[in-house]
Amino acid sequence: MVRREVTRIVTPGTLTDEALLDPRRSNFLAAVCPFKDRVGIAWLELSTGKFQCVDVEQKDDAGALGSRLAFLDELARIEPAECLVPDHIKTHPVFTALMELDGPILTERPAWSFAAQHCKEILLGHFGTKTLEGFDLSDEDTCGITAAGALLEYVQETQKTSLGHIVRLEPYRQGTNLLIDETTRRSLELTRTQREGQRDGSLVSVLDETCTPMGARLLMDWLSNPLTDRLAIERRLDAVEELVRDSRLCRELRELLGEAYDLQRLSARVATLRASPRDLSSLAKTLALLPRLKAKLAGRTSDLLKMLDARLELCAEVRAEIESTLVDEPPLSATEGGIVRVGRHAGLDELRDLAQGGKKWIAEYQAKQIERTGISSMKVGFNKVFGYYLEVTAVHMHKVPTDYIRKQTLKNLERFITPELKEYEERVLRAEGQSQALEQELFQDLRNKVGSACPQLQQTAEVLAVLDVLASLATLAGRQGYCRPVIVDEPCLEIREGRHPVLDRLKPAGEFVPNDAVLGISLDGSDKPAPIMALITGPNMAGKSTYIRQAALLTILAQMGSFLPAGSARIGVADRIFARVGASDELGKGQSTFMVEMTETARILNTATNRSLVILDEIGRGTSTYDGISLAWAITEYLHDHVGCRTLFATHYHELTELPQTMPRVCNWNVAVHEENGDVVFLHKIVPGAADRSYGIHVARLAGVPREVLTRANVILSTLETDHHDEVGKMKI
Amino acid sequence: MVRREVTRIVTPGTLTDEALLDPRRSNFLAAVCPFKDRVGIAWLELSTGKFQCVDVEQKDDAGALGSRLAFLDELARIEPAECLVPDHIKTHPVFTALMELDGPILTERPAWSFAAQHCKEILLGHFGTKTLEGFDLSDEDTCGITAAGALLEYVQETQKTSLGHIVRLEPYRQGTNLLIDETTRRSLELTRTQREGQRDGSLVSVLDETCTPMGARLLMDWLSNPLTDRLAIERRLDAVEELVRDSRLCRELRELLGEAYDLQRLSARVATLRASPRDLSSLAKTLALLPRLKAKLAGRTSDLLKMLDARLELCAEVRAEIESTLVDEPPLSATEGGIVRVGRHAGLDELRDLAQGGKKWIAEYQAKQIERTGISSMKVGFNKVFGYYLEVTAVHMHKVPTDYIRKQTLKNLERFITPELKEYEERVLRAEGQSQALEQELFQDLRNKVGSACPQLQQTAEVLAVLDVLASLATLAGRQGYCRPVIVDEPCLEIREGRHPVLDRLKPAGEFVPNDAVLGISLDGSDKPAPIMALITGPNMAGKSTYIRQAALLTILAQMGSFLPAGSARIGVADRIFARVGASDELGKGQSTFMVEMTETARILNTATNRSLVILDEIGRGTSTYDGISLAWAITEYLHDHVGCRTLFATHYHELTELPQTMPRVCNWNVAVHEENGDVVFLHKIVPGAADRSYGIHVARLAGVPREVLTRANVILSTLETDHHDEVGKMKI
Repeated sequence: MVRREVTRIVTPGTLTDEALLDPRRSNFLAAVCPFKDRVGIAWLELSTGKFQCVDVEQKDDAGALGSRLAFLDELARIEPAECLVPDHIKTHPVFTALMELDGPILTERPAWSFAAQHCKEILLGHFGTKTLEGFDLSDEDTCGITAAGALLEYVQETQKTSLGHIVRLEPYRQGTNLLIDETTRRSLELTRTQREGQRDGSLVSVLDETCTPMGARLLMDWLSNPLTDRLAIERRLDAVEELVRDSRLCRELRELLGEAYDLQRLSARVATLRASPRDLSSLAKTLALLPRLKAKLAGRTSDLLKMLDARLELCAEVRAEIESTLVDEPPLSATEGGIVRVGRHAGLDELRDLAQGGKKWIAEYQAKQIERTGISSMKVGFNKVFGYYLEVTAVHMHKVPTDYIRKQTLKNLERFITPELKEYEERVLRAEGQSQALEQELFQDLRNKVGSACPQLQQTAEVLAVLDVLASLATLAGRQGYCRPVIVDEPCLEIREGRHPVLDRLKPAGEFVPNDAVLGISLDGSDKPAPIMALITGPNMAGKSTYIRQAALLTILAQMGSFLPAGSARIGVADRIFARVGASDELGKGQSTFMVEMTETARILNTATNRSLVILDEIGRGTSTYDGISLAWAITEYLHDHVGCRTLFATHYHELTELPQTMPRVCNWNVAVHEENGDVVFLHKIVPGAADRSYGIHVARLAGVPREVLTRANVILSTLETDHHDEVGKMKI
Repeated sequence: MVRREVTRIVTPGTLTDEALLDPRRSNFLAAVCPFKDRVGIAWLELSTGKFQCVDVEQKDDAGALGSRLAFLDELARIEPAECLVPDHIKTHPVFTALMELDGPILTERPAWSFAAQHCKEILLGHFGTKTLEGFDLSDEDTCGITAAGALLEYVQETQKTSLGHIVRLEPYRQGTNLLIDETTRRSLELTRTQREGQRDGSLVSVLDETCTPMGARLLMDWLSNPLTDRLAIERRLDAVEELVRDSRLCRELRELLGEAYDLQRLSARVATLRASPRDLSSLAKTLALLPRLKAKLAGRTSDLLKMLDARLELCAEVRAEIESTLVDEPPLSATEGGIVRVGRHAGLDELRDLAQGGKKWIAEYQAKQIERTGISSMKVGFNKVFGYYLEVTAVHMHKVPTDYIRKQTLKNLERFITPELKEYEERVLRAEGQSQALEQELFQDLRNKVGSACPQLQQTAEVLAVLDVLASLATLAGRQGYCRPVIVDEPCLEIREGRHPVLDRLKPAGEFVPNDAVLGISLDGSDKPAPIMALITGPNMAGKSTYIRQAALLTILAQMGSFLPAGSARIGVADRIFARVGASDELGKGQSTFMVEMTETARILNTATNRSLVILDEIGRGTSTYDGISLAWAITEYLHDHVGCRTLFATHYHELTELPQTMPRVCNWNVAVHEENGDVVFLHKIVPGAADRSYGIHVARLAGVPREVLTRANVILSTLETDHHDEVGKMKI
């Protein structure tokens, strides 16, 4: 029985096997640590060593139901494959919320492994530091640090290997990123579709033109964490623009990047001593691209490209070390030899020579024995039974020296061995094993040397990833005719001829109808305050939802540093984006749709600021008409009077179209509809003004509803309408 | 090269291979023949021989859009796997409608194969009749007959075999069945769920307690075609009741049925000459159950059970023929022998004896030769090189007769053959083949004899199927505590303590809340006209949709002859059931939901009668509020004033709750809601009166919507409400 030691435990969050991982997606292991009114979250991508933590405050100003969700938004952004939770958490509301989140597998860990002091010591031990302040972590991050320590201990336990590639713990600071809550993220389909959870059809699927897995993962990261710092956004846009303008440079960069291997995961494998000879060779081949890449980056004008140039470490020593040590196409496994280049190590070359049968030695030995004995026909032979032997024909038998040991007699032959021959034989047989062992040793030396350059390699990998994302954005922008948005700090939105980035790609060219969206900008240059809220009315399926989502998606794209599918755009940086869109997806869960709708709405009302962008679709449909209208009306007023955020509100409540009369910063838009040959055509064009109210009865006529019903419906309609208006046509509210 | 002739072409609609068919579902091949304002449809279940046709009028009183769908409802009921269409149909609106139907594979056939005279001749040729009047088909059924002829010709072409089991073409008469259009069928989930198209979760999945595939298919048929003749329904109910009361009888019948094979498909295979020996054996084993079944049916009191007893043919001769001919466990294939019982045929027994080496003959021949030659040691032997031989030892060689032919000389032996021995050898070697051929012949004789009893076998199979369905309904009724509905001709509905048949089974026992539904029956015995329309208001997810569907499902169950999941029920026979429920499922298709909704509504308004049952869920949600209210209002009035059908209307439009004030036969119901510990509990109980209007704002409060918003919403709400009411609180319409 072979006793096998457990060398590694693989769990969903600690997968590093390339065959099992999607190279274009990060695979995060997370840990959640709730303590009082805070929740710490840490997350690690083991295959690259990226390790971050955050300390989330559980604000309770959003009411009992809203508050639980704050940390869930963070988890939704991270999308971990596995999430560690303390086992005593079961009674904690955080646990209930986690259970409802579909996605990560929850792994329970003992409560003591989340003890703050213990966790901190784990981290200090790993990083070899006396304090975590060097990582910009302070006592305020205790929950996050604790989660990180618990996570690291779990990884140490399961991996049983060096974790040298985890060189830092980065604090994630919420203020520097556009906040997108979980519901919004899901309904905008940023990284997966809402219905099937597929990448295909999501925003990232049309956005991703990267050539490397590093770039693909970073693009996901940028998309999940758009920026809020105008200058940082513009730095990215400058770089994209430079690449858009110099399309040849962009293409050449992409050609080089296309040849690169996944440097992040390769260097992580080096650090965890799991790199194979082929991995090192791939790493060297990637490093070999760097001088050409650096040459292309030389003399760029945008800050970001210049910075990338500066940070691009050529790692020439590492590369030289690998190239001089390894053969050109090394095997996958290090144990069977054939890794190290001939001429690298004299002892190895000798052993290999010996292992390959040592023809020269044999020839010399044979010649020596012929000379000694005068038996010119004497030969050295080999068989499996007794190894090397000297063969003498019968006629020469009398010449055989006495020190020859007879081993076999055949018809006309005798076979002998000598101690010298046997000693040589032993050396030959051992040589193969020795040569393999020596190669292994040389390989490990090499891997250690390369491993010590891990920080530089990771930095270079990061440069390649950023370069890949920038070139990807530039390529998309060039091919799809995207424009560079003007980023401003004022809370405004001005999109001209904007297109929905996904539908624009999925529909046949030219079929998608572009639309304008203008908020917070005075259109006539007058003193009249510019509208910041738009009510969009119009029939179902005419494109209202697409239109309002589009505005949100374009804002996100702009803040991640991308050009936009639009004629022109001016985007005021948003601090948060909220989308309360559709509710049909919740029906399956058997919850009260209306309760979910109101909970989400309450969250918006409580947390949106005058810098936020709010997208509302059909608020109030889950309740009775008057209730719905009243709530929608009051919500709009509240957003207008108290929050003052940019808002796009698609609604069937025509009552709301009266709002602009009393609220100066609300305006009406509607979707143009055209009747043609007795059929209704949706023009998908958003135009100013409220929708035509007779649309419903009109469709009913086309559908064949009896004339009596239509006539009566018209009478009722006009009664309803006049009831709500006083003499001057103003709604009586 | 073996030349293979095409012996059968298998298409989705002509599958009869049991391994590929779901035994519990009929597999129909259909043909559609549009001609002027009529559409003929024929359908055949090849594996049982059930062959029907219908001639559907394309009424155009329902407007341009409504009219196309009439024949689609029939196809939706039949659910064919394959549908034949004439190839010139492509320009016909029927074709467009067919293409939209997901389900059957469309197979195009040349236009001439749908020529009326040609098709009629095909049918006359097959049935060997001079007219089709014997099948109750007349010139009015021309389109249906034409479709049937085209279908039969296709089957003849593809099957290339006897179709003796297709013994009649039955006209399907629309008037005798409850009409359920395709949309209603789909949204009520009678045979498959709406979302996934699965049997699991559909009505039939909880209803089906049958023990045989015949019963399962018939249950599907009954469920798809509920009756409208009160007496016919009561005949079924009487039989079910008798089985409910005599649960021991029911159990014993089911035990016997559980041992039966699929007699319908078996006898069809006999008729099409595809039955294997094992099939015939299974058939005989099923027939062997009949005397015991018949004994159990003797002395029953309900008409239907008595009739089944009378129609149950024991087919004793067929059974005796099979039992006396076949061995107990015959093989699957007829070609390798071992089928026919020993003693059945003397010649066969002899051949088998011979084939098995004929030991007796050998012994006799050996004795004869010993006697003749005096060589006592002579033996008959056999080897593969030259077959049977006589073996003589060297010492006796001089005694060998001259007619012996020497074949082989060994050390002390010589081997001889004789012409007699060779002749015997040839007979033995041929015997195996002959015996197999004879068995095959006897088997075919048997199969032909059984085949000629096909009509009786089919009749008996039908009896078993009906018995199985009745016992299934009785078993369900007994176990789930179902009640027998009182069936009346008056258009009323009185369900007490009714439960949704599917949810009642899927939810833990006792968790589903029973509800009453009373329409068309005066509750206080006064002269006041009894309400026939109920408006159901109340919050989303509280169970409104479940409740209204439940009423439709219970009516369908009653009219198919089933007991009901209710305390008691009085069901007035409905001629049609309409369900306009939900529209979210259409969203994916990119159609205008509201157009679909209005088209379906137009159909109801144009085709419902005062004997129909109409279920409406949230009419008008796809348009603006006032349009929606106006239409819903006018539609309700129209149904009340002009149609007078039983109607259950779930709505969010509280405006409609004013209707009872002006329309005497409309009443308000709502879903009770209870607030408990700051949480809203849906009691799922339907109670008289309109719902509490403040519910929406109430939920918003629980969800954490800011207090200012709630206060303002309440103000707006009361303004809206007072606006619509004059001094006496009546709505001003």
